[in-house]
Amino acid sequence: MTGPAGGALAQRDRRATATVGCVGAGQLARMTHQAAIGLDIELQVLTPDPGAPAVLAGARQVPGRPDDLDDLLALAKGCDVVTFDHEHAPAAFLSALVDAGHVVRPEPMAKRLAQDKRHARRILEQAGFAVPPFAVVDAGDGPALERFAHEHGWPVVVKAPRGGYDGRGVAVVHRADCSERLEALPASDGQWLLEAMVPIALELAVLVARRPSGWWSAYPVVETVQCEGICRELVMPARIPPEIAERATALAVAVAQGIDATGILAVEFFLTTSGELVVNELAARPHNSGHATIEASRTSQFENHLRGVLDWPLGSTTMLAPAAATVNLIGPSASVDLGRGLPAALEDPRVHVHLYGKDPEPGRKLGHVTALADEPEAALAAAHGAAAILTGR
Amino acid sequence: MTGPAGGALAQRDRRATATVGCVGAGQLARMTHQAAIGLDIELQVLTPDPGAPAVLAGARQVPGRPDDLDDLLALAKGCDVVTFDHEHAPAAFLSALVDAGHVVRPEPMAKRLAQDKRHARRILEQAGFAVPPFAVVDAGDGPALERFAHEHGWPVVVKAPRGGYDGRGVAVVHRADCSERLEALPASDGQWLLEAMVPIALELAVLVARRPSGWWSAYPVVETVQCEGICRELVMPARIPPEIAERATALAVAVAQGIDATGILAVEFFLTTSGELVVNELAARPHNSGHATIEASRTSQFENHLRGVLDWPLGSTTMLAPAAATVNLIGPSASVDLGRGLPAALEDPRVHVHLYGKDPEPGRKLGHVTALADEPEAALAAAHGAAAILTGR
Repeated sequence: MTGPAGGALAQRDRRATATVGCVGAGQLARMTHQAAIGLDIELQVLTPDPGAPAVLAGARQVPGRPDDLDDLLALAKGCDVVTFDHEHAPAAFLSALVDAGHVVRPEPMAKRLAQDKRHARRILEQAGFAVPPFAVVDAGDGPALERFAHEHGWPVVVKAPRGGYDGRGVAVVHRADCSERLEALPASDGQWLLEAMVPIALELAVLVARRPSGWWSAYPVVETVQCEGICRELVMPARIPPEIAERATALAVAVAQGIDATGILAVEFFLTTSGELVVNELAARPHNSGHATIEASRTSQFENHLRGVLDWPLGSTTMLAPAAATVNLIGPSASVDLGRGLPAALEDPRVHVHLYGKDPEPGRKLGHVTALADEPEAALAAAHGAAAILTGR
Repeated sequence: MTGPAGGALAQRDRRATATVGCVGAGQLARMTHQAAIGLDIELQVLTPDPGAPAVLAGARQVPGRPDDLDDLLALAKGCDVVTFDHEHAPAAFLSALVDAGHVVRPEPMAKRLAQDKRHARRILEQAGFAVPPFAVVDAGDGPALERFAHEHGWPVVVKAPRGGYDGRGVAVVHRADCSERLEALPASDGQWLLEAMVPIALELAVLVARRPSGWWSAYPVVETVQCEGICRELVMPARIPPEIAERATALAVAVAQGIDATGILAVEFFLTTSGELVVNELAARPHNSGHATIEASRTSQFENHLRGVLDWPLGSTTMLAPAAATVNLIGPSASVDLGRGLPAALEDPRVHVHLYGKDPEPGRKLGHVTALADEPEAALAAAHGAAAILTGR
């Protein structure tokens, strides 16, 4: 006796204040849909999966794949602007959308920087930003790897130039295991991106919201803790001297301006043990490091992404609490039931829970917990406590 | 090329942490759905209208009417708990749902108090709460009206005992126009509820979230400004002495406990010119006077309604800003286009806009604007400024 959700196909276009097409329908699109409801923006999501997180939350599914130009064109046709929750749409197809008269934001050039680590490294280096020492070599070229290590030291970080995320597409190669693991190392387009292992004191991220007109607004610097390539936890604002926060923010804004980003651009930094800020990765979309903005900021990254890509005024990025921490809920097993622990996790009044409606899988991001507090340590402890209850750890 | 939103009917039940059925699919259900996404609660809404605000936002439509028992049973069958966004389901049908083994929250007894003003007045008076002097008489009984006025003075407030909202079902009758307007005065079940006009200094509202186990949490007292029976604006916290705020909160909690409310109970008060707090109306559901809680409180009334009816721990009702104000967007005409003014309204960083996706009609609530600020006057000014832009006034 249940009908389709989000019906009224004929009426909806007339009523929405704008229609935004999103390539991808994961948790980022899900939370973008949640933010879109208030502004009566219709979010249409391109995905082959009717059970994708954003579709379950009520975003309109446009059935199709991000690597199919016809599907991308079908999405764009009904939308004022096309944007993204991942990096899997080929840059050439995005250019084709623009050529066909559609509005794509961020624009294909900026999106390509977030998709292609080789390209990003070169452009950023040319523009004078500090990046880790790197080289692009043929995949499987052991001698090239040895030469790179000879120059920059072991271990070497080997990355697939495209397509990696959440720890996939990245490997740390030590001298001892160099010879035997070459086949299994991540590659794309027949290439490796080799990077020197930078001595890291902290990992930081800055989210910049930006409009096509150039107006921007930056969120407070976030401190992130990665483990096996997946962001495990974050603290906002980062526990760093104001001088470093200012420098990181200025760098991130300069990158956003330099690549003409629109919507949210996430710039991930290494703060080296010598106090240098090195640009690590870019993501031209809402980003895991910004999840605390939902509760901790006047305007969430998701609302500001929508406002940015629609060229609407950006919302305030001011924090509403002295400190916030987010802990990601990473699937411990395929049988975990996050719902079972939910009431117990909600006992702590500092805690906010976000579940993504995904089937559990080991290593999969199933949700996150954000806690607000007066001190970052208290926020972290609260978020960890709730996360432990939810994941049964 | 767009498919149904919120598809994956077969998969969704397994994944949701809970399934909540909502009788009604208006803006309250829409904002409840928005809150449900984070907790991965599936909201199913009973409505005949596939273009209802909650359905447009992606809540699952169960097609049907609130005054049809079979439709109510169809909703209840797929849900862990049945709740409401309006008062239009007959109390007898709600009891029938309970008799059939379904969980209805608030329970029919509490819901009936919010539905039937006669009943509420009597129960509250018997329990010792101050209410305006009232009488229940046959509709059209002019002499009874005259007698009531003789005892309590002109003007007299005439209400339909059931079914009134947003100014419908309420009339203020002055001596001069008494004789000629009798036919047109609001009534239900062939009766009038007559009320003395209380000398009002301020109108206040207190929202209490409550669990079946008895745990409760109250939001700060809200000051409301009504005009022609529609709530136009509200300020949180109310600009009243702490002593009055404490008294109002204690009274509201006592009402909630007394009627065994679950989820959100809104208690509306008159603060009389002599400093007395008189209970005006009850609403056993999320309420217009609580819209500022979305941005201004750690936990919104919508999330706490869900948590309350599911008997989950309630979220903190602490405010995140010193002051908040909400201004309702009342349709000035059928041709107003709120979307046109939206970007301009968003220029003020203190402002948060919520549009309900409704067809505009004069006098219809189409959305609301909430502003946070250090002072209530600044919040009100900001919210009014944005509302004026949106409604073109």
